[in-house]
Amino acid sequence: MSKKLTGIGASAGIAIAKGFRLENPDLTVERMVIDNVDAEINKFNNALETSKKELEVIKERTLKEIGEEHAEIFSAHLLVLSDPELVDTIRQKVNSEKVNAAYALREVADQFIAIFEGMENEYMKERASDIRDVSQRVLAHVLGKSVVSLTEINEEVIIVGEDLTPSDTAQLNKDYVKGFVTDIGGRTSHSAIMARSLEIPAVVGTKTITEEAKQNDLIIVDGIEGNVIISPTDQELEQYRRKQVEYEEQKMVWAKLVNEKTLTKDGHHVELAANIGTPNDIEGVHNNGAEGVGLYRTEFLYMGRNELPTEEEQFEAYKKVVESMEGKPVVIRTLDIGGDKELPYLDLPKEMNPFLGFRAIRLCLEKQEMFRTQLRALLRASAFGNLKIMFPMIATLEEFRQGKQILEEERQTLEKNGVKVNREMEIGIMVEIPSTAVMAPQFAKEVDFFSIGTNDLIQYTMAADRMNEKVSYLYQPYNPAILRLVKMVIDASHQEGKWTGMCGEMAGDEIAIPLLLGLGLDEFSMSATSVLPARSQLASITKQEAEIVAMESLNKNTADEVKELVRSKFF
Amino acid sequence: MSKKLTGIGASAGIAIAKGFRLENPDLTVERMVIDNVDAEINKFNNALETSKKELEVIKERTLKEIGEEHAEIFSAHLLVLSDPELVDTIRQKVNSEKVNAAYALREVADQFIAIFEGMENEYMKERASDIRDVSQRVLAHVLGKSVVSLTEINEEVIIVGEDLTPSDTAQLNKDYVKGFVTDIGGRTSHSAIMARSLEIPAVVGTKTITEEAKQNDLIIVDGIEGNVIISPTDQELEQYRRKQVEYEEQKMVWAKLVNEKTLTKDGHHVELAANIGTPNDIEGVHNNGAEGVGLYRTEFLYMGRNELPTEEEQFEAYKKVVESMEGKPVVIRTLDIGGDKELPYLDLPKEMNPFLGFRAIRLCLEKQEMFRTQLRALLRASAFGNLKIMFPMIATLEEFRQGKQILEEERQTLEKNGVKVNREMEIGIMVEIPSTAVMAPQFAKEVDFFSIGTNDLIQYTMAADRMNEKVSYLYQPYNPAILRLVKMVIDASHQEGKWTGMCGEMAGDEIAIPLLLGLGLDEFSMSATSVLPARSQLASITKQEAEIVAMESLNKNTADEVKELVRSKFF
Repeated sequence: MSKKLTGIGASAGIAIAKGFRLENPDLTVERMVIDNVDAEINKFNNALETSKKELEVIKERTLKEIGEEHAEIFSAHLLVLSDPELVDTIRQKVNSEKVNAAYALREVADQFIAIFEGMENEYMKERASDIRDVSQRVLAHVLGKSVVSLTEINEEVIIVGEDLTPSDTAQLNKDYVKGFVTDIGGRTSHSAIMARSLEIPAVVGTKTITEEAKQNDLIIVDGIEGNVIISPTDQELEQYRRKQVEYEEQKMVWAKLVNEKTLTKDGHHVELAANIGTPNDIEGVHNNGAEGVGLYRTEFLYMGRNELPTEEEQFEAYKKVVESMEGKPVVIRTLDIGGDKELPYLDLPKEMNPFLGFRAIRLCLEKQEMFRTQLRALLRASAFGNLKIMFPMIATLEEFRQGKQILEEERQTLEKNGVKVNREMEIGIMVEIPSTAVMAPQFAKEVDFFSIGTNDLIQYTMAADRMNEKVSYLYQPYNPAILRLVKMVIDASHQEGKWTGMCGEMAGDEIAIPLLLGLGLDEFSMSATSVLPARSQLASITKQEAEIVAMESLNKNTADEVKELVRSKFF
Repeated sequence: MSKKLTGIGASAGIAIAKGFRLENPDLTVERMVIDNVDAEINKFNNALETSKKELEVIKERTLKEIGEEHAEIFSAHLLVLSDPELVDTIRQKVNSEKVNAAYALREVADQFIAIFEGMENEYMKERASDIRDVSQRVLAHVLGKSVVSLTEINEEVIIVGEDLTPSDTAQLNKDYVKGFVTDIGGRTSHSAIMARSLEIPAVVGTKTITEEAKQNDLIIVDGIEGNVIISPTDQELEQYRRKQVEYEEQKMVWAKLVNEKTLTKDGHHVELAANIGTPNDIEGVHNNGAEGVGLYRTEFLYMGRNELPTEEEQFEAYKKVVESMEGKPVVIRTLDIGGDKELPYLDLPKEMNPFLGFRAIRLCLEKQEMFRTQLRALLRASAFGNLKIMFPMIATLEEFRQGKQILEEERQTLEKNGVKVNREMEIGIMVEIPSTAVMAPQFAKEVDFFSIGTNDLIQYTMAADRMNEKVSYLYQPYNPAILRLVKMVIDASHQEGKWTGMCGEMAGDEIAIPLLLGLGLDEFSMSATSVLPARSQLASITKQEAEIVAMESLNKNTADEVKELVRSKFF
């Protein structure tokens, strides 16, 4: 008898192989009173140095094999290990209490972890798991235990574990690791994001996989539906081998669309663009046939380091992206930091509700030197291709006007100094705050374009933190309220001869795509890997029928009714 | 030469008297190693008991002289002193480290305070000041120091202090304390709220009053404009004595309207209702001539205690309010807990963004026994007057339908048992989430009325925590986006023959009143003390001119433009 578990499909695809249990070394620690404080502190310092060296290696490897965005995790780990609040507290504890380093380390790290764990929400739990990951590495070295290495796997396996740490995922070798399954985690956990980047099928949050699966059990991972089968029957094996083949065939069909234009069945063109985090992501943009970059998040330039990036560093990054897109549009968002994304060196205030706090343009308009540096880098890069600038978290017209004014000042200074910039560069805003959607008619007179950021727009419109599991049922992209706001924005832009894009997850969602087409969206920007499926879907529907369904959806009562309507018409 | 300081006007009115500096006792503590642990713990236990007795006395006094809502602060203080996490940690510290109780107390309390202080936002700082207040009381007793007593003041003074603790304000005797001025605090701090309840003029947040004012300096407090003058010139004294007289005359003019109907200059009636927290507030409702209760917040029944209130307790409270309003409408909001309002005994999860979290109706639909108990109490009370029920934080139609379904089930059970209920009772919702404002046409078909909760609606629409000083500039009641949403709600309700009220602070704001009248608002619910000024203002404007200005405001670009428009037309 086979066993079936259900979890969250974190990365699409089917994998079949035997299970490999990821076991952590025994890191049990007892409190011991010690005589030689110096020797104990030395032991700790050595373990710290060894861990840092290991992390540097893993970071380099990740950078080369997976990409800059993921490598930043290890830069962050390295920063944790350089944080005096953590390491000095440990040393002081050894010194003042005359206890063994392992005990002091575990106690202090547990305090840090408890603070985040206690938050009982997915996002914070994930931060706790980062700290656990890095402190366990150091602890293992203090104890002289070897850290588990996934690099030694040399046959095809499905990894099974409570959770995969970022260090674990960075060591995955795609040739042998065919998929993974975890007890905990969600679609936004590091391991899930990594799985999608690596294109390894994965199911997370099964709750009990480590209890149910024994070493070497045959396992099927269905990352499309979020199902896991342990010791499948012959019939199930056959069924999933077929599904695996179908999925591969589907991917080959999509691959043929890579150089095609995006056209609806009745011949209307919309633009399919990709979201990127670093210049390294451009390769994926080309491989997936995106027609532009709809969102270049510039945060990664600022993260995992000790100081602000220079104008020169930024200019090089922006120029590289713009040039490699060869005249296709590249929408670059100015710094969106704060909220859930912190920069230790900026020393931002802790806030009770960071999602409703001092972030993005609000911060940039105050920290003007930082903002002006970025704008100069962007202006200089604008001469090398089709660059458009977009301000995030705009809530009022004053904020947009102030941002534009600062940009204009920098442009004039550059031109006075003989620097070439593109004077025709479009300047737009993210529409991710309800006030801005409602005020779209006024904004449309002054901006060049809108890009709707649905991740935030939905959470503010529904007043529900998208990271909080207790209210995740309110994260409703298909709620008619969201669709009505999207319509207000699109209509207002067209009224003034401007265009509207969307760069939230909703833009790549198969239920949302017909609705957005019907509402008149001009540009859809999504993960690069979603571009080809979206192009394929759009080719199968007419704009005319999408319009009828979209109008009908606005008068539905609930998100479920809208979903039902789309399913009945297009699936 | 006089000195002039500007702060935040926390309570209207003019006061002139000599300054009384509020000095705190010297609570300096040194770490000492002790021999007799038991004696030290006894000393702590005694101080704890003495503090609890004092707080009981202050609580009773507050209950009698100020009201239930404010007395709850001391119930909360008492709960802090019964919190094992705090007091046991202190005892353990004495025991394990063999240190003096005063040191252990200060260290542990400082840790708690630091957590809240570190948050760097007004709301959290105020929680820190609560803990500081109560721990200083205990510390003073441990040290054998006397706690400052404001009850001994026997001449007219203006209190000057860094901040006033809740215990300080509870001891204010209105006969002698004519006003107060503080360095820190905002309009929502305890001291500010208390000052308004006591009708003592107050200016908070002057930053430097304790540096600038010496004991016995003559001080003018202008709580209307937020100004403070130390050692005024004769001319200034004369000017402010005149202003004081004018303000008193103004209050007398308002007082004459107490039994008048609320009519605009062209004879249109709107309803002016009051917001209340407890049955004791009804006296103020009558004294200020409110035509109903537009918002009865039921949270206070649940706060400052160790367990949920019984159905009987709730029934008595609701019945008392409904009966004493003698047939006038009483809108009772079901429990709105969570977010910034915690109930320790419910053990709610800590959240990263509590304002976007598991609160109000979201919580009630999960904790159904608690919700059903309240609904039964409300249904039973409905037989005794004009009670209307309102659900808070409704984001989707499903939530409203589910709440109404549960209410209906309880109604049927009660009627089966022969209990009389009002079958015609209206059931409405708070509109405080943008999705609900946008979906008002759909909601209006199913609800009996809307009440717009602007405090939350503004913070979600602008994505700005109203407690966070760094983004307080975005808390914009006059932003055209807010006005457009208000219009959507009112129009949708009228379309279906329903009515719309407003129970946020905006409803009592003199700039907002003409706009809301013009947009067609049916009911304005505000602090009882704002009702008469509002009635006076409404009598001076015509609905027709208000409509023209309101329509014009919708097309303005910014909140400032709207404010300018209203000022130019009506002031």
